[in-house]
Amino acid sequence: MRILGLDPGSIATGYGLVERRAGHVVHVAHGTLRPPRGGALPDRLAFLYREIARIIAEHRPEFAAVERIFAGRSVRAALVLGQARGVALAAIAASGIPISELSPQQVKLAVTGSGAAEKAQVQMMVRRLLALATTPPRDAADALAIALCCAHAGRLWALQQSPLTRAGERPSGRERIHELAVRSLK
Amino acid sequence: MRILGLDPGSIATGYGLVERRAGHVVHVAHGTLRPPRGGALPDRLAFLYREIARIIAEHRPEFAAVERIFAGRSVRAALVLGQARGVALAAIAASGIPISELSPQQVKLAVTGSGAAEKAQVQMMVRRLLALATTPPRDAADALAIALCCAHAGRLWALQQSPLTRAGERPSGRERIHELAVRSLK
Repeated sequence: MRILGLDPGSIATGYGLVERRAGHVVHVAHGTLRPPRGGALPDRLAFLYREIARIIAEHRPEFAAVERIFAGRSVRAALVLGQARGVALAAIAASGIPISELSPQQVKLAVTGSGAAEKAQVQMMVRRLLALATTPPRDAADALAIALCCAHAGRLWALQQSPLTRAGERPSGRERIHELAVRSLK
Repeated sequence: MRILGLDPGSIATGYGLVERRAGHVVHVAHGTLRPPRGGALPDRLAFLYREIARIIAEHRPEFAAVERIFAGRSVRAALVLGQARGVALAAIAASGIPISELSPQQVKLAVTGSGAAEKAQVQMMVRRLLALATTPPRDAADALAIALCCAHAGRLWALQQSPLTRAGERPSGRERIHELAVRSLK
């Protein structure tokens, strides 16, 4: 089960891929997509679409997760962020990969144990949980945290009996993780 | 000179194509893109991207125009609109077509003579200016108005001497209309 986490932004979009193997989660890749500075907005958005499609083609995740956006922003910031986010969602959906939306609090809680953790704390915990040699940059760390949260939700699911599933009706791994992420976070 | 006007929205995206021929502007096509209702947001955005790419492949516009978004909206509305707008801009830019951003006031002014015109007035004037047999639906009429405004800006340019161009340095028609639209509307 390979999961792509994305943290879309107008200047930089972080991405992170993790894989769940026999009960533990391992690091696959991470990075930051930066459209050429000074480029026109439509070109920067087209760059983002193309690069996300490339990452999906290269790493073949079976599932993707992005953060739900909270309301405490300006109209201008929401518009700018919405543009990058819309492109990211469209690029993922065009590849036929199911997407889960996680709240920022849920992601921080899953990774650090606190829903109000600082950015630096998320970076540190992501490094520790994935046994990375160096601390990932902020946007990539956020994306890895999103992927980790999603993988963790799937692991919790496996430990629990779901009242919605019966013998002979067990959903696939992909459906399971999606179902839990959606159910537990809405 | 064929121009695509787009009016992106989360529920419906209007599109309209006009062509400037020997000093007058004629209607080419218009319509409304409606992602399947009840579909997940990423799938609706992927539908939008795909359909815009299809319209561009079918009608081969040389230029595109969208409205600049004004600030008088809620954060939630800006985010939702931004997502659709980002996808539209990325889909156009991926086709290599230059894009102009026009203000809503400029579009209304160009089409109706008033920057504060009502939607119904825009619909009526678009129908009249393009000699259409029926009134286009609201979103498509807005998109046609955007395309008309862009075509009109190009016509004004042709009537004026540009201080920025000299003999031997004349920009192409595409560059001209882009330059004027950008210069006159910023």
